[in-house]
Amino acid sequence: MIILGIDPGFQYAGFSILKKEGQRVFLIEAGFLKMSSTEPLHHRVAKFHDFFHAKILAHTVTDLALETPFLGKNAQNFLKLGYLRGILYLLASQHSLALHEFSPTQVKLAVTGSGGASKEQVAYVVLKLFPRLEQPKKADVTDSLAVSLCGIWQNKNLTAR
Amino acid sequence: MIILGIDPGFQYAGFSILKKEGQRVFLIEAGFLKMSSTEPLHHRVAKFHDFFHAKILAHTVTDLALETPFLGKNAQNFLKLGYLRGILYLLASQHSLALHEFSPTQVKLAVTGSGGASKEQVAYVVLKLFPRLEQPKKADVTDSLAVSLCGIWQNKNLTAR
Repeated sequence: MIILGIDPGFQYAGFSILKKEGQRVFLIEAGFLKMSSTEPLHHRVAKFHDFFHAKILAHTVTDLALETPFLGKNAQNFLKLGYLRGILYLLASQHSLALHEFSPTQVKLAVTGSGGASKEQVAYVVLKLFPRLEQPKKADVTDSLAVSLCGIWQNKNLTAR
Repeated sequence: MIILGIDPGFQYAGFSILKKEGQRVFLIEAGFLKMSSTEPLHHRVAKFHDFFHAKILAHTVTDLALETPFLGKNAQNFLKLGYLRGILYLLASQHSLALHEFSPTQVKLAVTGSGGASKEQVAYVVLKLFPRLEQPKKADVTDSLAVSLCGIWQNKNLTAR
């Protein structure tokens, strides 16, 4: 199982790739895609597609993990987030990836043991689990790691529920 | 100019392809893509992609026309509509299509002369303009024709404003 977890966004899209071998979990890669806010939206959509298409091929990804979005204050942002999710759905289908979706509460619960944990708490636990990982500059990276971990641990979580 | 106008949807996605030669406008094709509501969403996203990818290639489409969505009662539908718009943005970028987006009011105004026109009025005018077109079973088809026409006429409309 090689899982790609993504925290999509038009400015910063955090991602992480984890490999599960038996009971052990390895961090293959973590980082973010930065896109310019001055570039036309449809070019950024294509850039997002090409970037993750290449990652899936390069690391023979088998699973894709995403957080279910919630409608925030800005409906336009919610819709635009949908564009990127559409691209990820397309990639999941084209590469026959198993698709895992978790609510923000499920992700926090899986990683910290509390569904109401703060972003900082999530980052704290993620950094404890991957001590070699440098403190990422962007929360998007630790967020994506939390989603990947949730995908890796989901059977355990399903039992725990 | 060969324009593809789309009224995206997960059940029925209406589309129309028009060709402009000088002052004349020809209807190349109009119809809809029907998808099963029991199929997983990411497979439908991929089907939507493949269908319009093939149309763009088959008719050497140069322009893509879309209506800007508005947030209705159902936020989940709004997000899901975003998935399909993301796919269309990707196709526009991959095939270097000129992308035209119009508000519902702009489309109604361009076709019927009134920004507050009903769906039926839009369909009525579209059928007058293309008398050989059979009354489509789905309003999605006439809606997509209205968007395509808006794209074809946009310079005129821009002058008129």
